[in-house]
Amino acid sequence: MNKRLVLRTIGRIGLILAGLLLIPLLVSLIYQDGCVVSFAVPILFLAVFGILTQRIEYKKGTYRSREGYAIVFASWILMSVAGALPFVISGAIPSFVDALFESISDFTTTGSSILTEIESLPESILFWRSFTHWIGGLGILMFMMAILPKADRRSMYLLRAEVPGYKVEKLTTSLKKTVRILYGIYIGMTVLLIILLMFGGMNLYDAMVHAFSTAGTGGFSNQNTSVAFYDSAYIDAVIGVFMMLFGVNYSLYYFLLLRRFRDVAKDEELRTYVGIIAISTILIAVNILPMYGNIWSSLRYSFFQVSSIITTTGFMTADYTLWPSFSQAILLLVMCVGACFGSTGGGIKVTRLILIFKQIKRELMRLIEPRSIITVRINGRPVDRSELNATNVFYMTYMAIITASTLLLSLDNRDLLTTLTAVMTCINNVGPAFGQLGPTANFSEFSAFGKLLLSFDMLAGRLDVVPVLLLFQLRAWSKQ
Amino acid sequence: MNKRLVLRTIGRIGLILAGLLLIPLLVSLIYQDGCVVSFAVPILFLAVFGILTQRIEYKKGTYRSREGYAIVFASWILMSVAGALPFVISGAIPSFVDALFESISDFTTTGSSILTEIESLPESILFWRSFTHWIGGLGILMFMMAILPKADRRSMYLLRAEVPGYKVEKLTTSLKKTVRILYGIYIGMTVLLIILLMFGGMNLYDAMVHAFSTAGTGGFSNQNTSVAFYDSAYIDAVIGVFMMLFGVNYSLYYFLLLRRFRDVAKDEELRTYVGIIAISTILIAVNILPMYGNIWSSLRYSFFQVSSIITTTGFMTADYTLWPSFSQAILLLVMCVGACFGSTGGGIKVTRLILIFKQIKRELMRLIEPRSIITVRINGRPVDRSELNATNVFYMTYMAIITASTLLLSLDNRDLLTTLTAVMTCINNVGPAFGQLGPTANFSEFSAFGKLLLSFDMLAGRLDVVPVLLLFQLRAWSKQ
Repeated sequence: MNKRLVLRTIGRIGLILAGLLLIPLLVSLIYQDGCVVSFAVPILFLAVFGILTQRIEYKKGTYRSREGYAIVFASWILMSVAGALPFVISGAIPSFVDALFESISDFTTTGSSILTEIESLPESILFWRSFTHWIGGLGILMFMMAILPKADRRSMYLLRAEVPGYKVEKLTTSLKKTVRILYGIYIGMTVLLIILLMFGGMNLYDAMVHAFSTAGTGGFSNQNTSVAFYDSAYIDAVIGVFMMLFGVNYSLYYFLLLRRFRDVAKDEELRTYVGIIAISTILIAVNILPMYGNIWSSLRYSFFQVSSIITTTGFMTADYTLWPSFSQAILLLVMCVGACFGSTGGGIKVTRLILIFKQIKRELMRLIEPRSIITVRINGRPVDRSELNATNVFYMTYMAIITASTLLLSLDNRDLLTTLTAVMTCINNVGPAFGQLGPTANFSEFSAFGKLLLSFDMLAGRLDVVPVLLLFQLRAWSKQ
Repeated sequence: MNKRLVLRTIGRIGLILAGLLLIPLLVSLIYQDGCVVSFAVPILFLAVFGILTQRIEYKKGTYRSREGYAIVFASWILMSVAGALPFVISGAIPSFVDALFESISDFTTTGSSILTEIESLPESILFWRSFTHWIGGLGILMFMMAILPKADRRSMYLLRAEVPGYKVEKLTTSLKKTVRILYGIYIGMTVLLIILLMFGGMNLYDAMVHAFSTAGTGGFSNQNTSVAFYDSAYIDAVIGVFMMLFGVNYSLYYFLLLRRFRDVAKDEELRTYVGIIAISTILIAVNILPMYGNIWSSLRYSFFQVSSIITTTGFMTADYTLWPSFSQAILLLVMCVGACFGSTGGGIKVTRLILIFKQIKRELMRLIEPRSIITVRINGRPVDRSELNATNVFYMTYMAIITASTLLLSLDNRDLLTTLTAVMTCINNVGPAFGQLGPTANFSEFSAFGKLLLSFDMLAGRLDVVPVLLLFQLRAWSKQ
């Protein structure tokens, strides 16, 4: 492994991060909330680290998978630690483990919190919690590629390591152009959302906080009661629809810009995704109708919660732990389904589920006709064996991590449903869980060990599960 | 499909079943418990059906997969309905749906019950509950092959359909001989267990009931408090060890008879299985030590519960729902692990889990070295792609059935943990669940729909999950 090259790249990410931290520092200056130092310290630390590493002599060469994964892991650790510092220094979260949990929850766009009361926190700290969702949504490495001049073929390994399901390479011939298009769409939609939220009566600050959290599918609000605070059907509808939009593969928006409407309309993943949302919304709306009295309220709360959970955002307008078991079971299910490939949402992802079901169907046909040959296709394109294999191994690893984490987290001796769903909400990067961890609860009661374990699960979910296991395969790294 | 041949074979199974029902009828005569008619009616019904179908003219030909699955499904339905009749007629379980649930729980060796109080039931009925475990353990079709004169190559399709993981074909050149060897081992071990239990002070009747339930890994007792009733360390140890033994691949016992000790000692599945039991027992023993005071009691209860649940038997000597969450999580995990291939135990099976973990490891190596070629092996033998594929699809189907069933069962509006673990205990053919469905509880409070759904899950688990989905693929059957 080209260690010097890896270190240099991580240093560069440190510099970018220092630059991004200037924004909440500016917010702190505007609001005079006394947190300037809290941001200045990590900026200084990152800047020094960044400048020092840029002086490292290194052997020119290409990134390969090995370097790609090393850079991704190291940069996410760096981000998490640097992101935790403002919480600790400002005194908002005195414990470092708690601050690290919050920071990882931020960047992985999970939105699980250990805080019980947030409205009293300084404005810049709350801004930082949402802004990190926005950075983490598309990923810091993608951001680096979008802004740095040199982004060539070798960077593809980075992109693959940070967002493995992406397949963005195919959008345009130039990777750099592709990344810029995707970031352009991301920024454009975020700005549009800010404007729409301000129409609904939010001030600029609230609108930015909620727009960043929505775009990154993170879910942190600056209100204790999340989006329920505004109690506005308009805001529920706008955020509900935008969460859904941010869960769609961004390539499709590019196709829209290119007027390739047919490709969008026929996209199998999009159709399935919209179908799941529609069916889940209707089933829950009928199931909770007795609680809300009329179908419109019922649909309003049902759609918002479904959209929030399937996209793994985690905003809430109702306490679904009070809903009937059937509604809760649907939400738990869509939590695992997750959003589409190439979006900021987490979970198993719709395309993977389509592939799993098509394989089950193929196997059934084989039981009856052992010699039949059936090709699994998505959007008419045959899916090759290595892709199917990767999907299956992803799924098996995902279940294995959930199982192992549940087992370890049960050492905290909370009830099994709370334990299991805490792990599920973290690995899927959703935010709230079930049992004792509904939308109004928080994660502060877990032990330090439990918090670190859940932090690992959040990272595992964000970095697509399988590569994270490489961390346990140290032998594999050492081989040149 | 050769429908006449299928019908004739099912008729033959009906005749065998009629013969097997004579045994509880005999028990009823001995105990004079007034249930002679309860058994005579299904015997008559099966005998008439059997004799009539034997007169059907049919085109000679071979069974193929299609016929194999059709025979297996139809014969399990026949068994379930016929097995339910004695419960209904004797008045032990007046509701037919309840009786069907109990009967399916019997034959699939699950051991979940809708009965709240069993000690007052007639002796012959309790005997039948355990005897059906014993029949269902190795399967009725295997029994037919063992006793009928004509069992040739074509019967292999039946065997494959009833016990897909079996691979018994390889034991001897003759399938019939193999089946007889396996049944011989099964009977021999059952008799040995009866003798050992009588040594511990059980009467012949109690010993037979518990031995049948142990051998089939079913779990029905004739005591309300299951094995805890005897409160004997000796009986706990004997049943604990024998449950474990019945969860081992029976081929290994044949190897023992052939003095192929090395093959047994080196068997990867056996080692993993014993390892999982040992580690789980120790971890739980340490975890529950404060509840039991001394390490021996702690080990005694830990080992019994682990052995009972990993082999999917379901006997209980302690209420584990009162244990700490960590112990419960381990039990929930081993519930899914299940026993070895080629045993009477259910679950995912140890070999499948080994294959899943080896695939994850292979994929990790590929991430680092994309061009590396690694073969997955079991006991040194390479596992081919179609076998790996079948394993993966099994696992994905298994999870899909659990998910769909949990969703549907949640309509009964019981808490999510109870709902989820009820489904898991049924698909794994274990018996007791978690939450409100611990070892002292029963399934009577589910709705009729819920009971039928759980019955389906029990059958799905017993018949290896994937083939059961063929029932939903009616189009596939119609094609010649």
